Amino acid sequence: MLTKAQIKHLQGLKLKKYRQNYTDFVIEGDKLITEALLGNVIPDLLIATPEWLKANAGTLPEYIQVAEADANEMAKISSLSTPSPVLALVKKQIPDLQRIHPETSWVIALDDIRDPGNLGTILRTADWFGIDAVVCSEDCVELYNPKVIQSTMGAIFRVQVVYTNLAQWITSKSVKAYAAVLDGEDIRHVHFGDAGVLVIGSESHGISPEVKAACQHQISIPGFGRADSLNASVAAAICMHQLRLHA
Amino acid sequence: MLTKAQIKHLQGLKLKKYRQNYTDFVIEGDKLITEALLGNVIPDLLIATPEWLKANAGTLPEYIQVAEADANEMAKISSLSTPSPVLALVKKQIPDLQRIHPETSWVIALDDIRDPGNLGTILRTADWFGIDAVVCSEDCVELYNPKVIQSTMGAIFRVQVVYTNLAQWITSKSVKAYAAVLDGEDIRHVHFGDAGVLVIGSESHGISPEVKAACQHQISIPGFGRADSLNASVAAAICMHQLRLHA
Repeated sequence: MLTKAQIKHLQGLKLKKYRQNYTDFVIEGDKLITEALLGNVIPDLLIATPEWLKANAGTLPEYIQVAEADANEMAKISSLSTPSPVLALVKKQIPDLQRIHPETSWVIALDDIRDPGNLGTILRTADWFGIDAVVCSEDCVELYNPKVIQSTMGAIFRVQVVYTNLAQWITSKSVKAYAAVLDGEDIRHVHFGDAGVLVIGSESHGISPEVKAACQHQISIPGFGRADSLNASVAAAICMHQLRLHA
Repeated sequence: MLTKAQIKHLQGLKLKKYRQNYTDFVIEGDKLITEALLGNVIPDLLIATPEWLKANAGTLPEYIQVAEADANEMAKISSLSTPSPVLALVKKQIPDLQRIHPETSWVIALDDIRDPGNLGTILRTADWFGIDAVVCSEDCVELYNPKVIQSTMGAIFRVQVVYTNLAQWITSKSVKAYAAVLDGEDIRHVHFGDAGVLVIGSESHGISPEVKAACQHQISIPGFGRADSLNASVAAAICMHQLRLHA
């Protein structure tokens, strides 16, 4: 059974202000729990309904601390409109900009991405394309927003995410940086090479002037219709596919 | 001022069951209103706050019927968590499968897409790539769901959407149909040509066996990491980009 203090902590973690003071966060549902375990991320605490625990009895490593909760308690601590029968507390990443090396591999940089679904989807897509580092401007949506976590589909356990001053960081690196804009060079004709920084801008106003100035290259996805822009996570995905086109 | 009957109708249109009995739907915010007018879609009624109407006095065509509503009324009829100062009632598309021609141009087919954001984003992306027809299986999310409309960013006024039995429709056409799956031919090596059907499957279980059987080709987006799948709207976007790669 959950203690009152545990319920209070789990409920608190739904709020950004509260989350920022703790080193753990909540993952919900079978998919994320499986991905955590596959990534050797051991939950500090796994909370599940008696039915879920019965059905998954043989599959959980014995050293995981488990608490039972009924459907009512799950609804209280869940961030989902349809609460999952299982959730877990896991440790946040330790952000370390020194471990991100655009000199030797591709890094995605996000300037002012505000939509949680977009950030999560971009991490999932980066993971698909074997890109394991994303650098976010400080005004991007918070990584541990439950909607971000949910839409990463587990990429949160494989892709490193660090928040920093993007323009300064890019400038400090002597690497090729490509800004995805609406009037740049057609990405179909760009030779990307094996490493560098790909910058994707905000949903509403693109890449900021300071960040754009830090990039040597401006690139664009060719359009054939009348739409005036693409969704940010879609644009990021097409650019990542193009990066790997000749891989 | 809005009448009580108008408020009731506008509130009703938030519900799928109610919407299905009417030929109009609601669009919210400046972006969608602008796109409607650009697409020669004349709102039956435009509803806005006095402040919005003052600010946009010169820009609205005179023949549009306008009603004022205060912020409280807007909140009642809005589907957004942050209500917009302007919304409008416009006519739905007239679905007509006879006007969709995969023999001469690319058509996107969606099998059981349930997430409103995904459907809207796929329409927006299709519009970007100059694809003006999307055929949905009958179990796809409803086109007039407010979240779908919002995420189309106006593509709803340019891309035709028809719901039908997908397997039967594909079989009835003698065209090349490509199913996006996880174990098909690498899309980088596929020569797509100028027309055909591209099928994208559901978020949770991909393309159904019947629809897959109706497709001659199975194609896949090459992955380079450990993610086991891509978001449906991301997969659709990468495939559409690839269709236009040599255009």
